[in-house]
Amino acid sequence: MKFTYFNPTKLIFGEGTLSQLGTEVRALGKKALLVTGGGSIKRSGTFRKAVASLEQAGVSWAECSGVEPNPRLSTVNRGAGIAKEEGCDVVVALGGGSTMDAAKVMAAAVFYDGDPWDMMIHVRENRHEPQRALPIVTVPTLAATGSEMNGGAVITDEKTTVKSFVIAGCLYPRVALVDPELAMSVPADQTAYGICDLITHVTESYFNGVDGTPLQDRVAVGVILTAMEWGSKAVENGQNVEARAQVQWASTVALMGLVQAGSYAPFPVHLIEHSLSAHHDIAHGAGLSIVSPAWMRFAARSRPERFAQFAHRIFGIPFQKDNATEAAAEGIGRFETFLRSIGCPTRLSEVGIGEDLLERYAKDSLLIASDEQGRLPGRPPMSASDIVETLRTVL
Amino acid sequence: MKFTYFNPTKLIFGEGTLSQLGTEVRALGKKALLVTGGGSIKRSGTFRKAVASLEQAGVSWAECSGVEPNPRLSTVNRGAGIAKEEGCDVVVALGGGSTMDAAKVMAAAVFYDGDPWDMMIHVRENRHEPQRALPIVTVPTLAATGSEMNGGAVITDEKTTVKSFVIAGCLYPRVALVDPELAMSVPADQTAYGICDLITHVTESYFNGVDGTPLQDRVAVGVILTAMEWGSKAVENGQNVEARAQVQWASTVALMGLVQAGSYAPFPVHLIEHSLSAHHDIAHGAGLSIVSPAWMRFAARSRPERFAQFAHRIFGIPFQKDNATEAAAEGIGRFETFLRSIGCPTRLSEVGIGEDLLERYAKDSLLIASDEQGRLPGRPPMSASDIVETLRTVL
Repeated sequence: MKFTYFNPTKLIFGEGTLSQLGTEVRALGKKALLVTGGGSIKRSGTFRKAVASLEQAGVSWAECSGVEPNPRLSTVNRGAGIAKEEGCDVVVALGGGSTMDAAKVMAAAVFYDGDPWDMMIHVRENRHEPQRALPIVTVPTLAATGSEMNGGAVITDEKTTVKSFVIAGCLYPRVALVDPELAMSVPADQTAYGICDLITHVTESYFNGVDGTPLQDRVAVGVILTAMEWGSKAVENGQNVEARAQVQWASTVALMGLVQAGSYAPFPVHLIEHSLSAHHDIAHGAGLSIVSPAWMRFAARSRPERFAQFAHRIFGIPFQKDNATEAAAEGIGRFETFLRSIGCPTRLSEVGIGEDLLERYAKDSLLIASDEQGRLPGRPPMSASDIVETLRTVL
Repeated sequence: MKFTYFNPTKLIFGEGTLSQLGTEVRALGKKALLVTGGGSIKRSGTFRKAVASLEQAGVSWAECSGVEPNPRLSTVNRGAGIAKEEGCDVVVALGGGSTMDAAKVMAAAVFYDGDPWDMMIHVRENRHEPQRALPIVTVPTLAATGSEMNGGAVITDEKTTVKSFVIAGCLYPRVALVDPELAMSVPADQTAYGICDLITHVTESYFNGVDGTPLQDRVAVGVILTAMEWGSKAVENGQNVEARAQVQWASTVALMGLVQAGSYAPFPVHLIEHSLSAHHDIAHGAGLSIVSPAWMRFAARSRPERFAQFAHRIFGIPFQKDNATEAAAEGIGRFETFLRSIGCPTRLSEVGIGEDLLERYAKDSLLIASDEQGRLPGRPPMSASDIVETLRTVL
């Protein structure tokens, strides 16, 4: 086990902490680029409270509103442009994962005259690895991506319909202000997709990481059990602030780097899903909910014991060496049942996706990451036809 | 759930990482105060390798050697004096928890002309809360205290035989360089005491924290299961570097703040143990191994369900509402059996402590922390006579 773990984000967690926004931002700058998504934060009153806190602390602001789900490169350019024109010296993301991711790349794009797409991980020639960004403050309004406390961001180039990502030290938010009250107005379906997203962050590590990370595995199990128990309650009653808090905290822990430390896991389920949502603009978590169990069934053929261990730890399914395949299948089935129980789709047809572009999704996934044999990294690696066949099982 | 979590230490983990020491220290300063304990790191070759790495990177150094177990205030003063005389601009702790704790307080004492004891948490009048310290780099040679990646330090005033502690933001190491190979020469008994220490860091939170921290509880369980499984292997064969790595990582995670986030747990078992080791100079982990099961039996009377949950999660002991007391007792018994299996003491007589000073230990514990009714904080709080009676059960 060999790794470097460094997460310099200060996490301020709890109900009512939104009121601290102004003070925290003021310590970092005088004029904020306030990055927001759709209108929900304006309807819920969150925007008004955030602005009041900023203004009370003497922070002026300019808004980049309208960051769409699956945030686009053009939006990043627009936001960076506003930040430069308005002379912003700090970036505040107020919204879900898309808003936070777009805000992060805007913060770096301010210091880069080229195309922000040059920063993306898959760029092979003359890649620009961002070294500098405006200080970032994240205020998530949804438990899902964990973007509030990590250095990653996912962006879609809408011209080529390719979705890629960037990870850099300068993209770690200085402050993550996580107020679970802000998620109380999130509808049940988006809540459920977020739960699937956060769980998938740790299942990717659990199933695709190297051997020999028992503590990380157990933290992953803790995240999953917490998200399942409290996620169901949050879906059932969005006003249950205790449930909102537990799910929000689980989503932060899921991708703050601890579970990933030393596991060196590729994220094949994410990469396949990205190719779906880039083309069809579905919610990322909804796509994961379809791809994840399908991928599990594919991968369990090579490593039934690992999936049987998952089945045992998450669902208490007993297993011995001689029934690993059955235990694995039962665990995956139970996981799929859980996803359906909270309202997630598990078939492509449910989100309006047919079989026309299966080859294209495979090709797009492999564009972002592939090994020497041209396969998508994971345990096991997937060829283009493996990806197509896996998606075909959940049409 | 409401808390701030902020851990700015960069953790560099893995076999062979000691060779990176010079480069990391050079980024922080030019002349290091190298704080060391007994002679074991010199016999094992660790000291030679550390010095070679520093010198290769162009870092000069002055040594403060001889930090004793249960490090003393006079040693802190001696080290701070050396740092000032020699013009050191960075502090490197190379050793176990005592060495790291002493080094941290030395790093702050350089900037404080008064008595470093003024920094301790229990000081009621004119307490000096440290705001500034030389940059600190920790290189643990033993898995135990978790000091490598937190802002705490425990110091004993040998004149009054009072052991107290300090927690401050400026005491977080800039870098924790954790090379599990360094622990390979640690003898079995010290290895076992370290395992008990790290487990107790999370049981304190699990049993004394507020309700409603399910994810932190599950991370605690992950730490305990990992430490028990791999700790037994490390005790059995100290050269098992995989076991050393897993235990070292568990000790870091145990007290890096994640399990403690939002739990607001007092640490009664630690405070009682501190009063023992201040008087008798026993290993902290050995003292914990005696106090912890005794405290558990005391506390389980008020909250059998919580201890039954522990019994279930750690040892798979089935429990329902109507057998919580029995399940709790069985779990505590199994935990005590585990401690004995790795060679930890569970009776005061085993470490040469009799009943003469029982009242004094209670008084000393209460000097460090007490609630409005003069009781030691915890679930439940303990009066002086509760402490005496609890210790009497393990004479």
